[in-house]
Amino acid sequence: MESYDFGIVGLGVMGRNLLLNMADHSFAVAGLDLDTEKAASLQAEAAENHKIKATTEVATFVEAIRKPRAIMLLVPAGKPVDSAIESLLPHLEEGDILVDGGNSYFPDTERRYTYLSDKNIHFFGMGISGGEKGARFGPSMMPGGDEVAYERLRPIFEAISAKVNGDPCVAYLGSGSAGNYVKMVHNGIEYGIMQLLAEVYDLMKRGAGIADEKIQETFAQWNETELQSFLVEITGEILKQKDDDGTPLIHAISDWAKSKGTGKWTSQNAMDLQVPVPVIDAAVNMRDISKYKPERIEAAKQLTWEATSSSDVAEDQLLRQLKDAFHAAMLLTYAQGLAQLTVASDTYKYGLELETVTKIWRGGCIIRAAALEDFRQAYQRNPELRNILLDAQIGQQLLGLQENFRAVISFAVAKGIPVAGLMNALAYFDAYRSANLPTNLIQAQRDYFGAHTYERIDREGIFHTQWG
Amino acid sequence: MESYDFGIVGLGVMGRNLLLNMADHSFAVAGLDLDTEKAASLQAEAAENHKIKATTEVATFVEAIRKPRAIMLLVPAGKPVDSAIESLLPHLEEGDILVDGGNSYFPDTERRYTYLSDKNIHFFGMGISGGEKGARFGPSMMPGGDEVAYERLRPIFEAISAKVNGDPCVAYLGSGSAGNYVKMVHNGIEYGIMQLLAEVYDLMKRGAGIADEKIQETFAQWNETELQSFLVEITGEILKQKDDDGTPLIHAISDWAKSKGTGKWTSQNAMDLQVPVPVIDAAVNMRDISKYKPERIEAAKQLTWEATSSSDVAEDQLLRQLKDAFHAAMLLTYAQGLAQLTVASDTYKYGLELETVTKIWRGGCIIRAAALEDFRQAYQRNPELRNILLDAQIGQQLLGLQENFRAVISFAVAKGIPVAGLMNALAYFDAYRSANLPTNLIQAQRDYFGAHTYERIDREGIFHTQWG
Repeated sequence: MESYDFGIVGLGVMGRNLLLNMADHSFAVAGLDLDTEKAASLQAEAAENHKIKATTEVATFVEAIRKPRAIMLLVPAGKPVDSAIESLLPHLEEGDILVDGGNSYFPDTERRYTYLSDKNIHFFGMGISGGEKGARFGPSMMPGGDEVAYERLRPIFEAISAKVNGDPCVAYLGSGSAGNYVKMVHNGIEYGIMQLLAEVYDLMKRGAGIADEKIQETFAQWNETELQSFLVEITGEILKQKDDDGTPLIHAISDWAKSKGTGKWTSQNAMDLQVPVPVIDAAVNMRDISKYKPERIEAAKQLTWEATSSSDVAEDQLLRQLKDAFHAAMLLTYAQGLAQLTVASDTYKYGLELETVTKIWRGGCIIRAAALEDFRQAYQRNPELRNILLDAQIGQQLLGLQENFRAVISFAVAKGIPVAGLMNALAYFDAYRSANLPTNLIQAQRDYFGAHTYERIDREGIFHTQWG
Repeated sequence: MESYDFGIVGLGVMGRNLLLNMADHSFAVAGLDLDTEKAASLQAEAAENHKIKATTEVATFVEAIRKPRAIMLLVPAGKPVDSAIESLLPHLEEGDILVDGGNSYFPDTERRYTYLSDKNIHFFGMGISGGEKGARFGPSMMPGGDEVAYERLRPIFEAISAKVNGDPCVAYLGSGSAGNYVKMVHNGIEYGIMQLLAEVYDLMKRGAGIADEKIQETFAQWNETELQSFLVEITGEILKQKDDDGTPLIHAISDWAKSKGTGKWTSQNAMDLQVPVPVIDAAVNMRDISKYKPERIEAAKQLTWEATSSSDVAEDQLLRQLKDAFHAAMLLTYAQGLAQLTVASDTYKYGLELETVTKIWRGGCIIRAAALEDFRQAYQRNPELRNILLDAQIGQQLLGLQENFRAVISFAVAKGIPVAGLMNALAYFDAYRSANLPTNLIQAQRDYFGAHTYERIDREGIFHTQWG
């Protein structure tokens, strides 16, 4: 009785693997799942030296955990989180800690915090990234909210987290729903980079007709360069995977892309905050358009385009250009997500330190990449940096990449390949580096038809013109 | 007492002009505004033959209107609408009709309908477009919801609406919040087209250095072609407007673009419905990025680009290309908005007929354009059309425009001019006409790191691979 260090509710892929990860680090962990099969199979999977208890009984589960209890929920976002909280509440005592480790929508975290505070139950949200393997062998974790409660659990989380140069990929990020918010934007960036990789793959295959093996080798090689990152790495491995008949498995996979909503939330909230994240928007949009398969098949018959041959370049040159284009667009995707965090921190008073965020993203999570260390250093140089594009070193990188970046987009345009992610990255870059945008015309139009008034560049005030 | 046909609450630009428009058509109209100045100035503005009563007293206002009363609210969206309803309620009787003529967020309309139904007050939302002049001399109006109530007021609205070939630009559109929803998407399309015009202007001026006068003439000429539309027309007129010192006024207007939220709502809701509207997203984003003026000024110094001279074309040729590019992107913007209406009608059970929507958009509203008649005919040919890109005639138009469209984007890329709207229009076109998208790679990545499973193209089922 009461001899377990930690409890986990929800023994799906993430919950089960985090539990085993904790058990590897000598923590005694209890697991709860209403599914008998999941509870039983976890018990069977435990190693000799693991101290694990899996049950389907809430009371048994709660009683097994040492007081004050620490329990983490790993259940799907939304109602399941509230249901899990309600089922636990009658068994909890004041001072117990609940952690939501799922992808909860950040306003839900704020609501639950208030609800549980009234009952003197500590509660905080902690985004966890790393997928199946990360959870099992070292994820990146993004806690926010109740700092005292986090401090009590810090030894456990630091033990199980990924490490980069010995630094754990977990740190207290900020108040309120900061943990879930940072994880949401992490996922938005993930959507963006996945879309960019898909576009680069499409340009190689459909645009330039490069052989499958060469494409596979290219991604594998990129992962040995400054592009080193989990998503580039797995792209190389995915393209290596063979189907039963020996052909690349990727050819047999449907292009109907699914999503769980975190990318959409990132885009929608960015619009509320008036922070443009157009690469993430494009990624959300392209997953959506992938679902219009019957319309696309119909449109493909009618809306044809004879690709212009003058745009053909030598394969090796194209691959070099593609590398730079992906690199630039990847940097710009991080720039957008990090800018969103900067504004969100102001708006929601999270008190985020971007150096800490980029530091714990260097390992364990899906968007881990060599570039994260560059971003960390940029924030170290200037903690007040509003956008990493304004960092001299990152700016220099982009200046060196932009010629090939532009060439790739012109290639895609000539070939008729849709590259919404790449295009939005470039348009963002070109807009951000425009001291003057043509939005003055938009202000004039608004004043023309709606008398919405405008401001002038040469004097203060609000102006209206009787046009025409 | 009780001798007025109609009441209007809110005597701002829209309310006052709609009231005068009704008065022109021999309706007796009472106006209410808490601002003494607005009430008094309206009374002063009334013509000899107008029967107008303006007051700041709710009771006086309501008593003046014939029963069952018809009252339209023209107040800012959000709380002011609820406040106006609450201030009227004690004075209303069962069977009275309230119309919300503002840009209310459509879920608010659903909520208010339920609230007022319980009190036996008829209520419907009716989007109104046309700006200041449209309201005064003939707007386009988009009613939805309580059809019986609309029918009672139809003679008034048909009288004051814009007319195209004798057809009024007002018609009952569908149930629930259909009227506000259609107006929201109308505004989203408006955002998109305004952004496209700003980009084309930027390409002419900053990209190609074309003289102001020539640019002005170009927009004026475009309005004499199949591009004829309100927004093209006013762009020509805006560019003609001179500042006090004789230089074009546009040069003195700040590029810090404002917005009232309807474009953002359109984009955010499109993401909920999984309908891509990337040109509208781009327009929202570019207004947002316009607000980062200090960062842009800083970035402009650091992130330079030497435009490639090889991309220079003769001015006349470039202007022809720009015309086709704008034309194509404009068609694609309407396509996105209309596709959103199609899905929204399914989701929210509005029962929209797109032929009717495009018919009442032909005149009076901000997005009125010659092209709307083409769209109306497309829906007449096929009321089940899911996307106007699948209409053979519109598809043919796009096929004829796409070469110049692509040339313009390559020109912008080489010149370093941000054209997010044009780019997103092209990426949408190229994605929509792709029978196969590279989103299969995204599905593989999701399965790799999250065991999210995938579908195959050759057999039914849900698959998971042990990758690597």
